[in-house]
Amino acid sequence: MGDPAGIGPETIGKAWSARAAHALPPFFAIGDMRAIGRVWDGPLVRVDSPGAVAGCFDDALPVLSVADAGEITPGAPDVDGARCAIEALELAVGITRSGSASALVTGPVAKAQLYRIGFTHPGQTEFVAERCGIARENAVMMLAGPTLRVVPVTTHIPLSAVSAALSIELIVAKARVTARGLVRDFAIERPRLAFAGLNPHAGEDGEIGREEIETVAPAIAELVAEGIDAVGPFAADSMFHARARAGYDAAICLYHDQALIPLKALHFDEGVNMTLGLPIVRTSPDHGTAFGIAGQNLADPSAMIHAIRLAADAAARRALAG
Amino acid sequence: MGDPAGIGPETIGKAWSARAAHALPPFFAIGDMRAIGRVWDGPLVRVDSPGAVAGCFDDALPVLSVADAGEITPGAPDVDGARCAIEALELAVGITRSGSASALVTGPVAKAQLYRIGFTHPGQTEFVAERCGIARENAVMMLAGPTLRVVPVTTHIPLSAVSAALSIELIVAKARVTARGLVRDFAIERPRLAFAGLNPHAGEDGEIGREEIETVAPAIAELVAEGIDAVGPFAADSMFHARARAGYDAAICLYHDQALIPLKALHFDEGVNMTLGLPIVRTSPDHGTAFGIAGQNLADPSAMIHAIRLAADAAARRALAG
Repeated sequence: MGDPAGIGPETIGKAWSARAAHALPPFFAIGDMRAIGRVWDGPLVRVDSPGAVAGCFDDALPVLSVADAGEITPGAPDVDGARCAIEALELAVGITRSGSASALVTGPVAKAQLYRIGFTHPGQTEFVAERCGIARENAVMMLAGPTLRVVPVTTHIPLSAVSAALSIELIVAKARVTARGLVRDFAIERPRLAFAGLNPHAGEDGEIGREEIETVAPAIAELVAEGIDAVGPFAADSMFHARARAGYDAAICLYHDQALIPLKALHFDEGVNMTLGLPIVRTSPDHGTAFGIAGQNLADPSAMIHAIRLAADAAARRALAG
Repeated sequence: MGDPAGIGPETIGKAWSARAAHALPPFFAIGDMRAIGRVWDGPLVRVDSPGAVAGCFDDALPVLSVADAGEITPGAPDVDGARCAIEALELAVGITRSGSASALVTGPVAKAQLYRIGFTHPGQTEFVAERCGIARENAVMMLAGPTLRVVPVTTHIPLSAVSAALSIELIVAKARVTARGLVRDFAIERPRLAFAGLNPHAGEDGEIGREEIETVAPAIAELVAEGIDAVGPFAADSMFHARARAGYDAAICLYHDQALIPLKALHFDEGVNMTLGLPIVRTSPDHGTAFGIAGQNLADPSAMIHAIRLAADAAARRALAG
């Protein structure tokens, strides 16, 4: 459910309302049931275990109510809400790892509140990775929209620190996990990865920076030697128009905004964050808590719907592959 | 005409063919007439001066043939072609400055060839600025598409050098020229400028970099104090979706790809490069020479058509304003 004071609860309710239009499989919310009832007027039903979900999903949104979020005021996050979000997340990971649920979709949380209650991970992704026994660097964030998938090799670091943070090893590791994820979760037999350069015009043969020559190109060569379809580095500004996007399955980008600017310019309301490299399927709508509009029936559930859809598809593919 | 071996000549010919559909005013090419005849089978007419253009434009593409480009092979640039491109550019600037033409549209050139013949400017923009007696830093590159205008504060420098290249003064200078240009050439009475942050999430209050606090915000404050409608800094990845774009007239970006990635993701075939801050109107299609497809009738003239359209509109507004 994410933070009970954010737009997570509302978007889950709205996604349930749209279940038929989007052919969504049965899903359930985990968190404080009151958080949804307060911002969404559809039918809710309390369930005690995932096993009860399929039997009641047609008639109401099932909620596994595990934690008391205290006084919930939409738009006003507090530490009780943060505790509720983390308890829900912890349980959701456990349920998914055990196989009682096929996939995990996480709602948006307020990091500032989480830090106040002693949460020490940069975000939910790292928490989930740890609970799954996966090293942080092997959990890869992919952002997916209807016509574009991007993977940022570095994420929440200052732009001036990006060049020093890049290494052949890091790029290769992220790209490997991406390629495997595209096979496993997207049923793409031979994923095509396109790599962005770091500098304007991908450095123009070293005239405007040498990272392409010294780091990106060697990483690509190593991946190609492993049999991965990897091409580039390309001038980043010429990689994201429709014809260019048709040429690859994922763009490997070197910094946060290089990946997120095109994704959100094209698919702002539909972006899904998917963590590759985990033993479980985990997706998340690519937006924040949006406290400014919480509780006003203004939240767009598109990204939540896409996140559920993507999770369901990936889970089905894993099940098929055994 | 730009480089005679690039797609400039073909796109000019195709723009003439589309003159009625796009209501383009009379225009003429400057360069080696054979370069167009070789790649485009429409009618050409040689003119000796701009004054002759209006009388023949309806029936043929007028060409002021000023230079001999030697043996022209589409797709194979050489120094003769580079000399021809520069002679044409020099004449075109002179004609426009004298008022014999209302605006200058430049075709794409091959910088590598230009450097071989002793061209010492980073590009055509700086050459034009110098010929107009304008300091390089006061000539501002704006990229415009149908739903987005962007101005990169820094351009062809390595990404790792961007932070150090930024200053309050530089941002203020570029933004001032942009605001004046939007008034003068786009008839926007009170231009709204939106500023991008440098770091992910615009630095998250200093958590992920301090350029927003130390450089961008003070620049915005200075502009606001001058009466310019300047807002931000915003997280760059959330500035370029349709709803966000509706809120400003130009996005002031801090580095090349921050501006060019969204522009080209959204408007790859329509992007126009416009130089603000000059005494003349100057635009250019935002693509290169595309030697790989030159002479094969594959070039898309959309950007050239948009460049002519934008130049004509700006010239008309300047004429109206006296």
